[in-house]
Amino acid sequence: MNVLICSVGRRVQLIDYFKEELNKVGGKVIAVDCDPTAPALYHADLFEIVPRIDNPEYISYIKNLCRKYNINALLTLIDPELTLLASFKEEFEKEGFLVIVSEKKVVDLCYDKYLTFKFLKENNIPTVPTYIDIDMVIQDLNEGTIKFPLIIKPRNGSGSVGLHKVANLNDLQIFWQENHDYIIQPFIESNEFCVESYIDLLTKETTNLFCKRKINMRAGETDKSIVIKDSVLNDITYEVIHALKPIGPVDIDYFKTKDGYIISEINPRFGGGYPYAYEMGQNFIKSIINNLKGIPNTPYEKYLGEYEEGKTMVRYDHFIVL
Amino acid sequence: MNVLICSVGRRVQLIDYFKEELNKVGGKVIAVDCDPTAPALYHADLFEIVPRIDNPEYISYIKNLCRKYNINALLTLIDPELTLLASFKEEFEKEGFLVIVSEKKVVDLCYDKYLTFKFLKENNIPTVPTYIDIDMVIQDLNEGTIKFPLIIKPRNGSGSVGLHKVANLNDLQIFWQENHDYIIQPFIESNEFCVESYIDLLTKETTNLFCKRKINMRAGETDKSIVIKDSVLNDITYEVIHALKPIGPVDIDYFKTKDGYIISEINPRFGGGYPYAYEMGQNFIKSIINNLKGIPNTPYEKYLGEYEEGKTMVRYDHFIVL
Repeated sequence: MNVLICSVGRRVQLIDYFKEELNKVGGKVIAVDCDPTAPALYHADLFEIVPRIDNPEYISYIKNLCRKYNINALLTLIDPELTLLASFKEEFEKEGFLVIVSEKKVVDLCYDKYLTFKFLKENNIPTVPTYIDIDMVIQDLNEGTIKFPLIIKPRNGSGSVGLHKVANLNDLQIFWQENHDYIIQPFIESNEFCVESYIDLLTKETTNLFCKRKINMRAGETDKSIVIKDSVLNDITYEVIHALKPIGPVDIDYFKTKDGYIISEINPRFGGGYPYAYEMGQNFIKSIINNLKGIPNTPYEKYLGEYEEGKTMVRYDHFIVL
Repeated sequence: MNVLICSVGRRVQLIDYFKEELNKVGGKVIAVDCDPTAPALYHADLFEIVPRIDNPEYISYIKNLCRKYNINALLTLIDPELTLLASFKEEFEKEGFLVIVSEKKVVDLCYDKYLTFKFLKENNIPTVPTYIDIDMVIQDLNEGTIKFPLIIKPRNGSGSVGLHKVANLNDLQIFWQENHDYIIQPFIESNEFCVESYIDLLTKETTNLFCKRKINMRAGETDKSIVIKDSVLNDITYEVIHALKPIGPVDIDYFKTKDGYIISEINPRFGGGYPYAYEMGQNFIKSIINNLKGIPNTPYEKYLGEYEEGKTMVRYDHFIVL
């Protein structure tokens, strides 16, 4: 059983886990990236350098690799490629290459912060107020529904890339004029939480929920987290998954405000911090392997996640010469 | 021979190297940090959790550890502690604990971006124009010496923490009013370079110079670098070291503008990217061990650094559960 992983980048530990789990069942992980200096390439069983995802030949290139390596399933680790793979899902599957990605409408919605907001609001799931119309912002500021500081960030994008914090109307107007395809949100200073879940590819049932509270944030990336269990967080996560219907690994970020948890982002892919979940026994890769063998995974029993609360998890930098 | 390293934080690889080199000569590395979740602690031979560096008992606590572990030398990995250790250097050395830190006036100067600028200017070494007076900025803007965008960042601090980019006078004035102890500099969009050097503790001669060009910058941290050799960069580095007279490991950051290299920062300590230098054979830890044995290291022969040009080096995240 061979799995091809696209845009592996610096996700070294995840590729190590795939290699370990696939090797156990006589399979291999094949890693691809357009950048030969992507360190995760060198941790796979085999790797290939491919064109950039915006190259018109990209999909046929990947399809050829699936044939060459007798691939059973493929997935990507980056947001912009989710839509691409979702668009060609059927085409791949005609040749027997399962694409582990949610439906196109799901990944499109998650990639667009304004669509995410609209969807959650329609489903009465608490989220961060999000605007694409500055007049609406001004109206809500005047009505006192929101207040400064506000943040402006790209409508598509992850982490804090391109994020500006603005303290007054003048700054807001300047940044708004200069940046296109941006959204405006109130700045929320609160604890951040993250839930990693796996939705079975066969039964579409949630089989894992793993919750953590983020500590020190540095430029939008988490340095430290604490494992928690929280039935309220589980309930909201269930609600979102039920409404959105994603499949495979999904990572959902939350703020906790005085009114409770609100969703900040939904990533229908392996989250950057997935290694924490794996190290705590949340083996989504084994779940994928089961699914590929036609075996459904046991649905998660609400509030009874099989992991230990209170553990601290940290991230550090590793440097290598290629 | 035992070495105590303060504020080890997430510098896991550096502690691994210290352990490896010290173990070869029958020595040990003892790591300390105020945060029990600092992952580097757990890579040392022994570790201790200590008070914060601003605790009045900190120095006596560290001195007791030096006695307890029969320490030969100690050093710190973070900027704010350099001044502290430099202040108590003599006191430690009276008891036979060598503090590997430059003189207090050197570390104070490097920690303060405005003092660094003044020092370099006085020594005719090219650097980034730096202001602590907004009227001077306005004057130079009017005279066309500098232009927008400008950046505002803390006078003390590292990386891009607290950095704002401003596009016009209005924004500049707003940020300037809101932030105290900040400096203003022109925003420089250019390639960034870094030189790691070692200045022998006995001879005060430079024994290593290792140059790299940074690629992708993400939130002020380098993801990727390429090893280079450049006699011009070496010359400026020599000049700085000659004028400043630091000792031990020193990391100097540069921009390359159309007028040539200009210095952006001098860090009189192990740089965050030192593992690249080590992996390329620049073993500053062995140099420290030699010095502690009373053996001087061979001075660097200008332009003949013993490393291979053109190698790519990358950084990735590693996650652990404590």
